[in-house]
Amino acid sequence: MTPRHQTEFTLPRRLQGLQPTLIRQFFERALPDSINFGLGEPDLPTPEFMRKEAARIALEEKNGYTPHAGIPGLREKIAEQYPHLNLGLADIVVTVGSQEAMSAAFLTIIDQGDDVLLPDPSFPAYDACVRIAQGNPNYYRLPADKGFAFDIDEFKSKITPKTKAAVVISPSNPTGKILTPDDHRQIAEALKDTGIILISDEIYSDLYFGDRPHSASEYYDNKTVIVSGLSKSLSMTGWRLGWLATTQKEISRAALVLHGFLAVCTSAITQKAALLGWTDEAEQAKQNARDIYNKRGHFLVDLLEKELGLKATSPEGAFYTMLDIRSLGDDIEIAEKCLQNRVITVPGVAFGQEAKGFLRLSFCNPEERMIEGVNRMRSALRG
Amino acid sequence: MTPRHQTEFTLPRRLQGLQPTLIRQFFERALPDSINFGLGEPDLPTPEFMRKEAARIALEEKNGYTPHAGIPGLREKIAEQYPHLNLGLADIVVTVGSQEAMSAAFLTIIDQGDDVLLPDPSFPAYDACVRIAQGNPNYYRLPADKGFAFDIDEFKSKITPKTKAAVVISPSNPTGKILTPDDHRQIAEALKDTGIILISDEIYSDLYFGDRPHSASEYYDNKTVIVSGLSKSLSMTGWRLGWLATTQKEISRAALVLHGFLAVCTSAITQKAALLGWTDEAEQAKQNARDIYNKRGHFLVDLLEKELGLKATSPEGAFYTMLDIRSLGDDIEIAEKCLQNRVITVPGVAFGQEAKGFLRLSFCNPEERMIEGVNRMRSALRG
Repeated sequence: MTPRHQTEFTLPRRLQGLQPTLIRQFFERALPDSINFGLGEPDLPTPEFMRKEAARIALEEKNGYTPHAGIPGLREKIAEQYPHLNLGLADIVVTVGSQEAMSAAFLTIIDQGDDVLLPDPSFPAYDACVRIAQGNPNYYRLPADKGFAFDIDEFKSKITPKTKAAVVISPSNPTGKILTPDDHRQIAEALKDTGIILISDEIYSDLYFGDRPHSASEYYDNKTVIVSGLSKSLSMTGWRLGWLATTQKEISRAALVLHGFLAVCTSAITQKAALLGWTDEAEQAKQNARDIYNKRGHFLVDLLEKELGLKATSPEGAFYTMLDIRSLGDDIEIAEKCLQNRVITVPGVAFGQEAKGFLRLSFCNPEERMIEGVNRMRSALRG
Repeated sequence: MTPRHQTEFTLPRRLQGLQPTLIRQFFERALPDSINFGLGEPDLPTPEFMRKEAARIALEEKNGYTPHAGIPGLREKIAEQYPHLNLGLADIVVTVGSQEAMSAAFLTIIDQGDDVLLPDPSFPAYDACVRIAQGNPNYYRLPADKGFAFDIDEFKSKITPKTKAAVVISPSNPTGKILTPDDHRQIAEALKDTGIILISDEIYSDLYFGDRPHSASEYYDNKTVIVSGLSKSLSMTGWRLGWLATTQKEISRAALVLHGFLAVCTSAITQKAALLGWTDEAEQAKQNARDIYNKRGHFLVDLLEKELGLKATSPEGAFYTMLDIRSLGDDIEIAEKCLQNRVITVPGVAFGQEAKGFLRLSFCNPEERMIEGVNRMRSALRG
């Protein structure tokens, strides 16, 4: 007897309903010559010393497969960045940007039906990655009325017996807020007897405008999985250099095996060039980026207040501010109007219900572009 | 009441029992100065024109995020490679080597409990990727006694009502065999009313020693997912350039969204350099690789027969031959003896039960190295 099949293709459950993020959907409809307040990508060029080194490596070296975990010298540099964790080379997996580290973390930690605590608002890839791993996102609010600051009671109230992991993002995408040492202590205290794995997204950790942010791993050292990379601090988004680091041996071991099947390794040229990511030159480039984004961030917030009479959050890190447009109406409609006036913004709801009524604006633009962008926004808001 | 948790971390089911491949495990124990018959990686350098172009791009261009699907010009080149499919740019996803394309294909097609037909023997990452997608590998034998040729009756006998996808690999890793047009016709005929998606691994399609291999998509055009890349044909393993291509819109669309969360994009420098992957210079480099591997393959097979009195399969493509050591004993034990004599081989069983009693030898070595390697094997086999 011939076996009978369902001949219509159906997607597996992990991908059903999965859509490109609202951020993407806005970008893809942008008009030519738009001013881009939407992008989560540095406009500063990749530092010259890094580009030269990559050119040299492409010309002179053999660039075959690297070890799946990444070249040892690079893992050494990464380990040194977290001295409090005393990491060995086996505790680090070099990934295809921090995005692969994020996916690998969820696929390694979350099983079907597990709950995952995510901040609302947060970068929407988190929600997607949890669903791909067939877990259930469970949101803790970063209350808009408190300027999106962390709220321990809210966090604790969302822990369930099925919570397997919790996510913190500091500096935050989309809010630009940084967790305080007190926030970290409270989180560690809340989690300490639960077995919950804390996934700490530190991709913006080099972009801060006050005190250097702390890593969640300083407070919850034995159950934190760090997700980070060089994309934002050294303007290397297209180079794809990220990492996952943790003292949890079972997680690093399984994430490494998984990574071998997801990607084998990230670009050998990128990995070797990234060895320069912790030199004096690199530190200088990071400092330069901090200075520029700091200046621009405050410039933009002031400009928005002066020109539009609207409040935006004061950025503490990353390159985002949240513009409060609750008095004006729906954020999707307003972002849409802006889009038609050739200025790209992201409606807050793209990051969660708590950011409804806000627009995320990135300040990856020189000041004169931001002036023009805010002018266009003014026209859009009048229209 | 405090919620109660399981405080010991347990891996999600998709990763339980997942191990690095036996290939990896052998490599990692290799002695210094070993001759490497184990590696699935070209020893020929990346062509000069490609390295120069990458250097230029690193120095001169901005290398930020590319579109998730890959830069449009590159997708155009890829589309042109499959004229019979009439692919548009939306039908192609550029991936982090063909390995990410493989993972993305399974995660996009396979749901928990689906059956997947895999060749025995085959590259073990297939088995792993099916398990990560929580499917069940179901093996069809490529009979050792027929030189690992495709057997349609065996293939058909393994189709079940739960079979959602089938995999073909041509030229094959590990056997070096190529599917004939008749094989392809029989496969298409067997699948045509089933709805089964055919995943066609064509990563070695440019490395052939007789007639150019056909793509399964020429015969089963509307339900084939092609997995391929430039790693093997242009010695670009560490550059990470692969792709997934299919006329199945639902699969390409979902695979693209998934890929955005798994990797965002592969290296921008790699993608831009890869635009040269279909030029006359590239065709010449591919022809050069074919000539070299063809010569080496026959040299190695003759050498093995002459020096060891053992038969190896005559390679039709890729850069592998299967050495029949069934008369000598267990393949793991013999590969282990070789390893101790500083020659790396891979026991056949790493690729499936059907290859038990064989060693996979790759000929990514100059002839003098292969002579030395076979000498060491002779000592090992005596020991």
